[in-house]
Amino acid sequence: MSGLRPETLQVTRALARHIVGVRDQELPVEVRHEAVKTFLNWMGCAVGAAKHEAVEIAIRALAPFSAPTQASVLGRTERVNIFDAALFNGIASHVFDFDDTHLKTVIHPAGPVASAILAYSEYKPVSGPAFVTALATGIDVECRIGSAVYPDHYDIGWHITGTAGVFGAAAAVGKLMGLDEQRMIWALGLAATQPVGLREMFGTMTKSFHPGRAAQSGLLAALLAEQGYTSSESGIEAKRGWANVTSTHQDYNEITGELGVRSELMLNSYKPFACGIVIHPAIDACVQLRQEHGLKAEDIASVELKVHPLVLELTGKRTPTTGLDGKFSVYHSSAVALIYGRAGEEQYSDTMVRNPLVVALRDSVTAEIDPQVATDAVDATVVLKDGRRLHKFVEHAIGSVARPMTEADLIAKFDDLVEPILGTDHGARLRQACLDLDRLPDAGAVAREAQLKP
Amino acid sequence: MSGLRPETLQVTRALARHIVGVRDQELPVEVRHEAVKTFLNWMGCAVGAAKHEAVEIAIRALAPFSAPTQASVLGRTERVNIFDAALFNGIASHVFDFDDTHLKTVIHPAGPVASAILAYSEYKPVSGPAFVTALATGIDVECRIGSAVYPDHYDIGWHITGTAGVFGAAAAVGKLMGLDEQRMIWALGLAATQPVGLREMFGTMTKSFHPGRAAQSGLLAALLAEQGYTSSESGIEAKRGWANVTSTHQDYNEITGELGVRSELMLNSYKPFACGIVIHPAIDACVQLRQEHGLKAEDIASVELKVHPLVLELTGKRTPTTGLDGKFSVYHSSAVALIYGRAGEEQYSDTMVRNPLVVALRDSVTAEIDPQVATDAVDATVVLKDGRRLHKFVEHAIGSVARPMTEADLIAKFDDLVEPILGTDHGARLRQACLDLDRLPDAGAVAREAQLKP
Repeated sequence: MSGLRPETLQVTRALARHIVGVRDQELPVEVRHEAVKTFLNWMGCAVGAAKHEAVEIAIRALAPFSAPTQASVLGRTERVNIFDAALFNGIASHVFDFDDTHLKTVIHPAGPVASAILAYSEYKPVSGPAFVTALATGIDVECRIGSAVYPDHYDIGWHITGTAGVFGAAAAVGKLMGLDEQRMIWALGLAATQPVGLREMFGTMTKSFHPGRAAQSGLLAALLAEQGYTSSESGIEAKRGWANVTSTHQDYNEITGELGVRSELMLNSYKPFACGIVIHPAIDACVQLRQEHGLKAEDIASVELKVHPLVLELTGKRTPTTGLDGKFSVYHSSAVALIYGRAGEEQYSDTMVRNPLVVALRDSVTAEIDPQVATDAVDATVVLKDGRRLHKFVEHAIGSVARPMTEADLIAKFDDLVEPILGTDHGARLRQACLDLDRLPDAGAVAREAQLKP
Repeated sequence: MSGLRPETLQVTRALARHIVGVRDQELPVEVRHEAVKTFLNWMGCAVGAAKHEAVEIAIRALAPFSAPTQASVLGRTERVNIFDAALFNGIASHVFDFDDTHLKTVIHPAGPVASAILAYSEYKPVSGPAFVTALATGIDVECRIGSAVYPDHYDIGWHITGTAGVFGAAAAVGKLMGLDEQRMIWALGLAATQPVGLREMFGTMTKSFHPGRAAQSGLLAALLAEQGYTSSESGIEAKRGWANVTSTHQDYNEITGELGVRSELMLNSYKPFACGIVIHPAIDACVQLRQEHGLKAEDIASVELKVHPLVLELTGKRTPTTGLDGKFSVYHSSAVALIYGRAGEEQYSDTMVRNPLVVALRDSVTAEIDPQVATDAVDATVVLKDGRRLHKFVEHAIGSVARPMTEADLIAKFDDLVEPILGTDHGARLRQACLDLDRLPDAGAVAREAQLKP
């Protein structure tokens, strides 16, 4: 950071001024295109998880308070108020752990932002271009704020998707509202005072609660600020503001540097596998080894992985007992990748983690930390029962920024998630509505297209 | 803390087990009586602030989403859903900074807890005794958890009323629901992941947002847990749980020691003055000096205070520009105490902080830090224009635990706050309903009695 005192930096004000000033027609076409891609990916995840237990439970818990029927629960029949829609869709979009990832901060950016603005846009109709601008701006804001405190903030134990996400949601809803600079500052202040999410919650339904609650909290911040509810003028950078209270490190240049010139959205990536992103290189290597050598589980004696330190810290569960647990196990994930050649939702069911074939292969996997291995890389060796050693070094996992999923990959992923819920024809209409987002006269139409007819 | 690892301590489980096991008839009569007192005080504050701008703005912001009409906004005509009632009443009860204080942690305990359970009890009727038990239990829980991390947690910059308050609200609502131990653990986990409140927000409307949002977040935590939404089993004490993430110090014995034997509620205190509690000794001294010597503003040359270090840290605003600002100024507060002999809401209006007589006297006040002075003490000297020095040492300010307000004082304070909103007769009926709380067949009747007829 600069030698100036943070109060002098006016980080919150500079950011608010930028958000207020962004114009639809000035946002670069590649940023708009990336916003549509992440929206498509987010929608697929949310619709695909529409029948997940976490979604069912949350709806059951809040149904008595959910009137008026303002907004759509994606992939379902319920219509609820905009706060509940933001919560339910935020939970659904993250519960498969299959959404987007800003690898620089491990933020899952779309959940908090898209859940908030899609609900809001059903209450106050907005054009597709305005929606795309708000989505891109919100994602840029949350990832900038996250970047200013990463990795210390995350190391302390905050689930950065929730804690930074509330800023993204507040900025994006505030942008759709057309807040002036003063009110945008208050919205950011009200966001700062509501950080959501501890990493301790990983492996429980509360992890997916975080983007949902961040969407609600950001929406609430913007609605209060719009009516003049006052807050700090420097909620982010003040001595007892968000960055100092929740982190031991602050680099405010990540927030205010090159505003409007570079967008953090361009560093977003999409997951080919339904689990924690740090295991993706291992899954990729196992899938490749299986294909190249026609491997079968019964031929394999053991698997040896060399991985980035974060892999064992985040996904070192030796003996997962539920499907959700399996997403935090590099051992389970490598085993299913070798047996099935994929790691979709099906490979993370409760029955799958108890499948004897999977358990036996899982128990033969060892993972060793190697600080030389990058977060998107892995060094994998499969030892066969006949003594052969098959080796694969993955430099950049599929789905990383260096080796992104193609648009066709993304569409295939979307269809895989959505068809079981909406059927082929209805799913295809929703897919087209998402792809057309930047040309729609009414962005809320996408939400209604994502509903099941009662 | 003990030498055991926190995971071995099972803090969250022990606390949940205690909450689940509390019985109405086993709660000591003095604890029940104290719960009724803090409820009366909380109700007076909330009704008194019913027309405050912060309340008006919040209602305006959320009105379009507030159906169904399940619960009362105190001192007003609106009926809203239970979440909005919890938010609005939590804001109202704290916006005058006139509510209760657990001095050991500077938590204002009633706001988050009473706002949540009063709203809930209008949705699911509960008896007065069950309500009092839940209120006492919730306050004990939040103050125990706050005590475990105080003062480090507060020094870092957290507004402990919001961050600990969410646990109190979750525990109290969960108690009314009759959650079992497993679900109570999840409710505490869902509370842990939603800390609300930065001290940076002091002096803005966002400070009073904190108890309101904590009430909502705790209510949400209990409702989700009731339906089986899973969370951590050790949300408080885990390595990346609430206490470690939000504080550098943890004393878990404060949470689990003598559960059911001592109640932190017995350390609660009530404010005679409508401002930050740390200024109360200075106001008390000035009021006493004025009375004893018949002082008039024009006789005073200057005022010299020796104060606890927290006084200047929290209330050192030299030149307040709004009434709300004035509550964070020991200078303004001493001046009005000398001129008017009181420090009620009237002394913290926008016009009062610009009153030339007040400004002149305020500018003559100096405050010096003396680490020997306790938080509830002050050493005050008024220097007269004729050269005389009038000295007053207050060892325990009025309203402190050592020198509490009497029940008659509390009733007079209640009437002062409520009569301007409800009128004398209606105010007297509400006062009686509050005092009868532990005998009412339906606790929600108090909320309805607190409403203005449309």
